[in-house]
Amino acid sequence: MENDLNVVGQRLPMHDAAAKANGTAVFTDDLVFPGMLHGKILRSPYAHAKILNIDTSKALKLPGVKGVVTGRDIPDRLYGIVPKARDEYALAKGKVRYIGDEVAAVCATNLETAEEAIELIEVTYEELPAVFDPLDAIKEGAPLVHDDTPNNISLSINKQFGNVEKAFAESDFVFEDSFYSQPVNHAPMEPHAAVAQYDSQRGEVTLWSSTQIPFFLRRNLSNTLQIPESKVRVIKPKVGGGFGQKIDMFAKDFCAAWFAMKLLKPVKFVYEREELFIATRQRHPMHLTVKTGVKKDGTILAQKFKAYADGGAYNSTAPTMIALSCYFLMIPYHVPNLVYEGHHVYTNKPVGGAMRGHGIPQARFAVERQLDLICERINLDPAEIRMKNSIHAGESHPAKFIINSCGFYDSVKMAADAIGWKEKRGKLPFGRGVGLAGASFPSGVSNMSHISSGSVVQLGRDGAVNVLSGAADIGQGAETVISQIVAEVLGVPMEDIRITAADTGVTPLDSGTFGSGVTVRAGNAARVAAIAARDKLFDFVAKELEANPEDLMARNREIFVKGSPARKMSMKDAIKGYQYADLPMPIVGRASWFPPATEPTTLFKEDGNFAPSYSFMTQSAEVEVDPHTGKVKLLKMATAHDCGKPINPMLVEGQLEGSVVGGMGQALYEDVIVEKGQVMNASLLEYGFPTFMEMPEIEALEVITDDPIGPFGAKEAGEGTQLSPAPAIVNAIYDAIGVDFMELPITPEKILKALEKKA
Amino acid sequence: MENDLNVVGQRLPMHDAAAKANGTAVFTDDLVFPGMLHGKILRSPYAHAKILNIDTSKALKLPGVKGVVTGRDIPDRLYGIVPKARDEYALAKGKVRYIGDEVAAVCATNLETAEEAIELIEVTYEELPAVFDPLDAIKEGAPLVHDDTPNNISLSINKQFGNVEKAFAESDFVFEDSFYSQPVNHAPMEPHAAVAQYDSQRGEVTLWSSTQIPFFLRRNLSNTLQIPESKVRVIKPKVGGGFGQKIDMFAKDFCAAWFAMKLLKPVKFVYEREELFIATRQRHPMHLTVKTGVKKDGTILAQKFKAYADGGAYNSTAPTMIALSCYFLMIPYHVPNLVYEGHHVYTNKPVGGAMRGHGIPQARFAVERQLDLICERINLDPAEIRMKNSIHAGESHPAKFIINSCGFYDSVKMAADAIGWKEKRGKLPFGRGVGLAGASFPSGVSNMSHISSGSVVQLGRDGAVNVLSGAADIGQGAETVISQIVAEVLGVPMEDIRITAADTGVTPLDSGTFGSGVTVRAGNAARVAAIAARDKLFDFVAKELEANPEDLMARNREIFVKGSPARKMSMKDAIKGYQYADLPMPIVGRASWFPPATEPTTLFKEDGNFAPSYSFMTQSAEVEVDPHTGKVKLLKMATAHDCGKPINPMLVEGQLEGSVVGGMGQALYEDVIVEKGQVMNASLLEYGFPTFMEMPEIEALEVITDDPIGPFGAKEAGEGTQLSPAPAIVNAIYDAIGVDFMELPITPEKILKALEKKA
Repeated sequence: MENDLNVVGQRLPMHDAAAKANGTAVFTDDLVFPGMLHGKILRSPYAHAKILNIDTSKALKLPGVKGVVTGRDIPDRLYGIVPKARDEYALAKGKVRYIGDEVAAVCATNLETAEEAIELIEVTYEELPAVFDPLDAIKEGAPLVHDDTPNNISLSINKQFGNVEKAFAESDFVFEDSFYSQPVNHAPMEPHAAVAQYDSQRGEVTLWSSTQIPFFLRRNLSNTLQIPESKVRVIKPKVGGGFGQKIDMFAKDFCAAWFAMKLLKPVKFVYEREELFIATRQRHPMHLTVKTGVKKDGTILAQKFKAYADGGAYNSTAPTMIALSCYFLMIPYHVPNLVYEGHHVYTNKPVGGAMRGHGIPQARFAVERQLDLICERINLDPAEIRMKNSIHAGESHPAKFIINSCGFYDSVKMAADAIGWKEKRGKLPFGRGVGLAGASFPSGVSNMSHISSGSVVQLGRDGAVNVLSGAADIGQGAETVISQIVAEVLGVPMEDIRITAADTGVTPLDSGTFGSGVTVRAGNAARVAAIAARDKLFDFVAKELEANPEDLMARNREIFVKGSPARKMSMKDAIKGYQYADLPMPIVGRASWFPPATEPTTLFKEDGNFAPSYSFMTQSAEVEVDPHTGKVKLLKMATAHDCGKPINPMLVEGQLEGSVVGGMGQALYEDVIVEKGQVMNASLLEYGFPTFMEMPEIEALEVITDDPIGPFGAKEAGEGTQLSPAPAIVNAIYDAIGVDFMELPITPEKILKALEKKA
Repeated sequence: MENDLNVVGQRLPMHDAAAKANGTAVFTDDLVFPGMLHGKILRSPYAHAKILNIDTSKALKLPGVKGVVTGRDIPDRLYGIVPKARDEYALAKGKVRYIGDEVAAVCATNLETAEEAIELIEVTYEELPAVFDPLDAIKEGAPLVHDDTPNNISLSINKQFGNVEKAFAESDFVFEDSFYSQPVNHAPMEPHAAVAQYDSQRGEVTLWSSTQIPFFLRRNLSNTLQIPESKVRVIKPKVGGGFGQKIDMFAKDFCAAWFAMKLLKPVKFVYEREELFIATRQRHPMHLTVKTGVKKDGTILAQKFKAYADGGAYNSTAPTMIALSCYFLMIPYHVPNLVYEGHHVYTNKPVGGAMRGHGIPQARFAVERQLDLICERINLDPAEIRMKNSIHAGESHPAKFIINSCGFYDSVKMAADAIGWKEKRGKLPFGRGVGLAGASFPSGVSNMSHISSGSVVQLGRDGAVNVLSGAADIGQGAETVISQIVAEVLGVPMEDIRITAADTGVTPLDSGTFGSGVTVRAGNAARVAAIAARDKLFDFVAKELEANPEDLMARNREIFVKGSPARKMSMKDAIKGYQYADLPMPIVGRASWFPPATEPTTLFKEDGNFAPSYSFMTQSAEVEVDPHTGKVKLLKMATAHDCGKPINPMLVEGQLEGSVVGGMGQALYEDVIVEKGQVMNASLLEYGFPTFMEMPEIEALEVITDDPIGPFGAKEAGEGTQLSPAPAIVNAIYDAIGVDFMELPITPEKILKALEKKA
């Protein structure tokens, strides 16, 4: 009994599920302050143009308009997540680089007036030649998106492990194939929003924002507004999804703060859905060529990659994206020799940014598709080749990754079994098929700023446990998982935990929600802080019970002596007793946690252990292709995910199911269609996400490993599963109709054309 | 230089002054939540009646009405600040006891509908005989306000020190006089308000309330709603004044929470000004008889008191009020023999409660008036008699008070000098006069619940200092003073401090704003917590500078070695260094502070040190009486206040000035006029506070002492000065026109009548 877990490992609903369902949860747009003003952003109608003049006089004269700001007015400070790759102004200075680029902003007493006013701003542009294709953009003489970036290549990575040419020479077969992965939009349910309030006396701006990383936003606001970081407070209300799109600072954040400071009134900016499509972030479209050398038995000897990522007009998280795209080619398979040449290319299009998987799904699509192509060419079984090349825990790794736990081999087996691989693969009637694909993801990447995740746990005399965490729950359930961890440590039920998360004015430093690290980083911080608070109580209780503190444990709101549970004291009595002692003290535990990992992300130079742990997963799909309509129906997807020991299996399943839907959209439906820089389908209706009508049967399989670093053995579950549903589906389409698709998405048109061609 | 103070002792504006001035400060009524409902309370039109039936059907049928609650529906739980004196239901059960008593509440989609709906509630009453005068109420056969309270005496106190009868026998003179002090209303600028939100999943109700004691409100809500304390979170937004009126829980708090829980929507209740007058709290009217024995030279040998406080329909803070009224008769003068018999009497009238000074001003009026009467009768100087009888620091005390510091003697001298006592007393032409009066007040009383004041101080890498305090700033500047204390300890400017105060879900336990203890309790807690945080840094910096931690000090955002200030490290570098060390930890200091005092308040039985320290003060007044109109013009009031070493002299002056205005209102203008239980002047216009037109010249004099217990030597400044302006003014009126007034207020009618009689 003493080693059982009571709260961790339980299928508990998210702690704010009811509030979100009944509408009482407060999102940024729900905030209302006295005298609040409303803002609206004027965006560029040109893909590439010089701004010759901006005349704001008519807008300023409109009754109700309180202010207008343009790029001229703001400090000369670039922003961006990665300091070395900053290339963006909150409002364009001098020129615009894509349709949607921010030109000016208006603040007015109501939204209607603000909307009317932006139409009254007269901007004189000089249109410039634009470039829309990354392969065109790198050509000599192409228009330069940023004048200081020749060939429009903003970032390149060239990594070499082992000796690829030698290994190719030793291979039985060498294959080269090219692939393309399209741009897709995150489309969080909640549009981006910001509300700012300024305290003119302390010189402090408070920003409520739908952000994934409050502390990064604080830094970027501090830099762009040119006020000290200590004078910026960022509060994250409920956030309705992010998927990476809410990692960056946006013009709405800057402009809300700017106007609040200038006008001494609260200011709200909320983006419309169209703005989310054209002017936030999207998954990078990527052109990838893969050359792979294998032995006859399928053993991979070497791989060589060339990748061009279409970044659109700005860098955003490009350095991280390109690094992840590269490094995660060496996992989950043994690839002893590898070359990766990757380029991030500017075009006059919407900006690429972090998105669930972040650079890896594109590369994974190429690798996992090519593995199936290879199997077809040399007559191997796609499941077998994956198991054969699987890496295992404890093995040494060419890029110096440290694999503490690894369930990949098992995940292939489980996913294959779940889809009926042996009975079905190659044996189903025309139009039906199965496929699978594998992947691995970092469980909490290291990061760029030595930012640890901190936690403060306070025990109150009322019996409530107040947890302060900087972790940013954006809907994934981080607060629930952290609460479970603290409840487990303190031996109290989940309902006793009250968590305050992500207010930089109250909660300790945290690195935010990215890289699937919240459970690992903030979870570990909360775990250690809870232990610190518990230890204070244990010291007190040990004296009272005449026991050693080490012999105590907490369970069911009681603290008792291990092995003699009759010697006990209730948690409440312990807290009271502690506080009635000589000097009644708040019982506060504090901790911080920093991933034991190095930082190849920023440097690209030295290799090292990218993440404290790695998750592993395999997806298997069964599809039905209608040869008459070209429509693909995903019948079932099984996802076998090694996320260590899950803290909350229900939330893990939610993550896996969400990832399946995301991957399915990427494979079959989604594509941000851009013509001459103009997004042609910038609405939920036109963009065409999969809906409940398209849902497959989803079987979520847990591959349980016990990770030594994650809290209670847990690893990431938020992103990894998004990496391989698309290739699994495309591989299944091959099994169904015998067509090899190399570009995403596989639309009915493409199916029909391919079938026609085949016939 | 090393012992100089940089922030403490400075005249700094309140940290939220600008926000309050420009309207961005958020008070409870400013809160808006999605789907918020609005509530309204139905009040009794009868002073005393049985509730025979309540028919809510018509109200419930009104479109927009979401719910109605009556006393039948709520748990059978009484509430009140002092557990043993609880006698009030959130909504009346069975009978109503005053005009304004809460009968039912309605919740609707908007306020207008709620107002309409309460008119549709049909209540059948059976009117009962009522009693309106406490001296009638104690008579045999009087109607009983509470059936279980014979003679309507809810509480009595009988204290005896020394041997009064023996001392009277030894006195040269014994005088007996009777006095009456009227009911006055606090009239905070901000009406009482509450907003509640319910988290049905965690079973937790959050209440934003204009409260002085969030943690007491939490307890009373927990008890009356019958949910655990850990499921109640109370958040105090900005509060626009309290003066004691916002200490209690009110029906609006309970009803907001109740409806939020039942309807799963946020709910707001805001009282109208009329409700503040009739149905919150007021200063207890009190009848007092004082018998004093003195020697020829004015030495006081004994005093005997009999007091009847008119409590109205409920107890509220009666036990504390009656105890303060009694104990503070033994200070600031030596009274070696004393008897006090005090009674708190129920009547069918508005409820008495805590108000600035809380029971003492009434008694002080009697004592300070009688001292002047005695001086007149035996030809002594009123200033001399006060100095002669003054107690002094370090002297033993009949009630076992410990007087650590005492500036009373000096305060009499300074106040007398400031008003030109020697030149003016008895020497001004008819119609002008000067008077003075003294007092003493507890600097942070002990309290009923072993509730300490806690503080948590976090140092962030951004350079901001985040202070979590449970202290409730209700406009007096508590957050500013706490910030100054923390800034001083950490050696940073005030602007680096960001304080989060009074959210029971985030901030540590605090006993709230009452008894003039916030600076002492919460200030000391913050001071000790800041030292704890600083010590962590000092340990780190000491290693870096190769010094002893004890030799370090912090000043101007730097930490340096005392005596060799060149050996130093910036605060920012120290924090960064600490956090980059092995395990980067949030730097958190925590502390709690509990007054070193005993608790005569609840027990009335054992004597003891009532408060950690005591403040002392004398007010002197010069008045001009117009014999034709009867109007009294207060020309000047000097207030000499021993508040130790003030943390912020400007805020102290604000308190002193506010108290002068309060005392002036009590002396000359204010009176809650009640006829047969009905308040006749329940509006700001009719009630007639002094306005800026009536303001005298106010000279605030600091009597500096260095208190060993208060933070940085500070003592209370919030209430003491309110104790004696009224008798000072009345004493000055005697000097001006030779009339002895024994009842407050001294209206023009009373002046004219007295002058007529005299003539």
